[in-house]
Amino acid sequence: MRTAPTSSTWRLSDAAHALQPSAVRNILQLTQNPEVLSLAGGLPAPEAFPVEALAEASARVWRDQAHRSLQYSTSEGLPALRQWVADHLRAQGHRVQAEQVLITTGSQQGLDLLGKVLIDPGQPVCMGSPTYLGAVQSFSPYRPQWLAWRPDHAVPPQARLAYAVPNFHNPTAHAMGLAERLACVQQVAQAGVPLIEDDPYGALWYDQPPPPSLASLAPDDVVHLGSWSKVLAPGLRLGFLVCPASRMDTLGHRLLLAKQGADLHTSTFDQALVLSLLQQGFSLEGHLQQVRARYRQQRDAMAQALQRHMPPGWHWALPEGGMFFWVQGPPGTCTTALLPRALAQGVAYVPGAAFDLPQPGRAPADAPSAHCMRLSFVTLGPQAIDEAVRRLSQALIPLGDVSCSSP
Amino acid sequence: MRTAPTSSTWRLSDAAHALQPSAVRNILQLTQNPEVLSLAGGLPAPEAFPVEALAEASARVWRDQAHRSLQYSTSEGLPALRQWVADHLRAQGHRVQAEQVLITTGSQQGLDLLGKVLIDPGQPVCMGSPTYLGAVQSFSPYRPQWLAWRPDHAVPPQARLAYAVPNFHNPTAHAMGLAERLACVQQVAQAGVPLIEDDPYGALWYDQPPPPSLASLAPDDVVHLGSWSKVLAPGLRLGFLVCPASRMDTLGHRLLLAKQGADLHTSTFDQALVLSLLQQGFSLEGHLQQVRARYRQQRDAMAQALQRHMPPGWHWALPEGGMFFWVQGPPGTCTTALLPRALAQGVAYVPGAAFDLPQPGRAPADAPSAHCMRLSFVTLGPQAIDEAVRRLSQALIPLGDVSCSSP
Repeated sequence: MRTAPTSSTWRLSDAAHALQPSAVRNILQLTQNPEVLSLAGGLPAPEAFPVEALAEASARVWRDQAHRSLQYSTSEGLPALRQWVADHLRAQGHRVQAEQVLITTGSQQGLDLLGKVLIDPGQPVCMGSPTYLGAVQSFSPYRPQWLAWRPDHAVPPQARLAYAVPNFHNPTAHAMGLAERLACVQQVAQAGVPLIEDDPYGALWYDQPPPPSLASLAPDDVVHLGSWSKVLAPGLRLGFLVCPASRMDTLGHRLLLAKQGADLHTSTFDQALVLSLLQQGFSLEGHLQQVRARYRQQRDAMAQALQRHMPPGWHWALPEGGMFFWVQGPPGTCTTALLPRALAQGVAYVPGAAFDLPQPGRAPADAPSAHCMRLSFVTLGPQAIDEAVRRLSQALIPLGDVSCSSP
Repeated sequence: MRTAPTSSTWRLSDAAHALQPSAVRNILQLTQNPEVLSLAGGLPAPEAFPVEALAEASARVWRDQAHRSLQYSTSEGLPALRQWVADHLRAQGHRVQAEQVLITTGSQQGLDLLGKVLIDPGQPVCMGSPTYLGAVQSFSPYRPQWLAWRPDHAVPPQARLAYAVPNFHNPTAHAMGLAERLACVQQVAQAGVPLIEDDPYGALWYDQPPPPSLASLAPDDVVHLGSWSKVLAPGLRLGFLVCPASRMDTLGHRLLLAKQGADLHTSTFDQALVLSLLQQGFSLEGHLQQVRARYRQQRDAMAQALQRHMPPGWHWALPEGGMFFWVQGPPGTCTTALLPRALAQGVAYVPGAAFDLPQPGRAPADAPSAHCMRLSFVTLGPQAIDEAVRRLSQALIPLGDVSCSSP
């Protein structure tokens, strides 16, 4: 007689156990309720997508190159799109050739590939705290030792990489000035450590353009990541990575092999679509002016709403670009504990603790950013922003009874 | 006086050094010469892409859901597309719910995610030798111990995974019969090891449909990978992974976190495009009948050409499906050494040694498949196939002077 099969427990890798959940993606689940006004996600305003121009570009691709854009293509990306990136960056003072450009499935993939080819378990990586939590998610399976770091501070030479978001940081909205940039690239050059410059927001400035990129200041020392997600549309998952010319035979070669194993190449059709858009009759600069005007107005609406509604003891700076206000509560506040009360009022945000570097077993209330919250101003229009901040203030006003040790 | 900056050598990870190059992608570079008839790549015939139906589906997406299909979406994939996969697999006897389906950026990404969450360095994985080299590329950064394995042989319980391509294997074209399938799932169940069933070719049968999938025979023990690359178009990079229902809380949860870190999600637009195609007025089965008829004709043309042109001592079996002939030369032949002679005749193939499991320092001539070659019959039409095989035979006829120890 055969015994009934028993389902064994499969052994998962150490990397699997090190994977970090995304607090933002979890909160997005909670905000499916249409009554909740969400300031949580960094979702670009759909009205800002250049839909008509993209639909026309799509029609051109189907008419002129349908078969080619449905076929396998090279892991590096379409040559003309790599050339466009190089030309675009050169116009911003970053000396780069098309050969240095790797098209990626969103700049998120660039982070995953860099983690794979640079990090060994237990080895230090230098990140801000708070930092972009997608970078923590990408690096976590490679199990680094997380080192909280500020871009103008020393980098230990044993660090495997340093990571910076110079323009309108997520979540703090911090914009690095020229002096801080120069200090940053000097630190990584001295340590001999690769600096990852993650720049999804550089084009979203509302007052004045940012200073030169870290890569243009130190082309040998910086791997530059860019994205079309915030300037065109995130659903296409199109980003790029620029490897220093002097590192192509080593890092660049290994990144390409890692890309082959990860997804062979990025969607040929999506690449052809964006290339057709950028090459034929569409003014990216004109489009960006419209996007900036929209987001500037929404930023100003949120600044006014915060001024109008927030109770005493809460502080924020006006973001010069990007997508977020970083709002700090009175000492002892725990925005993780406050979130259910905000949801009950019909508004969502992301608690600051979600953006701090991982530390096993630490309670959210003990995280360095426990008293902060990230509010996005790019998804909702000015009126909805005002109402959302009003609701938020209702959740905050009787602060005393929120236990900061609650989950 | 400041010293000139010297460019230090960046430390790469152990994973980076373990990455395997793709012989196929390297050979594709050599075949850019338009005079070369390539039997090397597994590029589907562009004429087999349902271009008109896809262009119509694209127009519908732009008309009805442009904003949504350009926005960020969930890491799991579009709910309706996951549901389509579940329904499609259920119709083939595989009991699966939409919740078990993870949409991936090509099934190549499924392999990468599985490697990440299952393999620790030095731990055994069971693969065929020869095997699909994209799987070797995906798993190599996680640095397994490669164990050459046949699907009906015992699996060591310490193995982290076993990998099988049951339908029209790449490169051997082997189709597992029902008895071999039953033996295979019994082996992995006994060992308590996950079996990865990689099934890109199952719909490409030319004589009779394949037996039930491994996942339908053992739903608790098999992770099933599928792809739209071979049945619709590879450039869209759309695949899917089905996790056993009983493993969702463990493996499924970790795969989802790994997917978030890898690329957030697969292109929303490409998912919406294929979903619109599959849901509205397009007969996938009708399309597959056309594709099968085309490839059956090309397979038969290659069988005739091999019969007509190949010198004595070369052997092959008629593939029952998929994309490839696996052609075996006389003992001592080294198809790696023969490749330059074939290119000089204007034809390309992939040498068998490229598909064997990695073994550092081994010369191609010493690989188990050194005397074999993989010939694709899906890219070229019947006439070009005949001419390509004729050229190939010209390269093979004076065999004696090829040193099998040359690179």
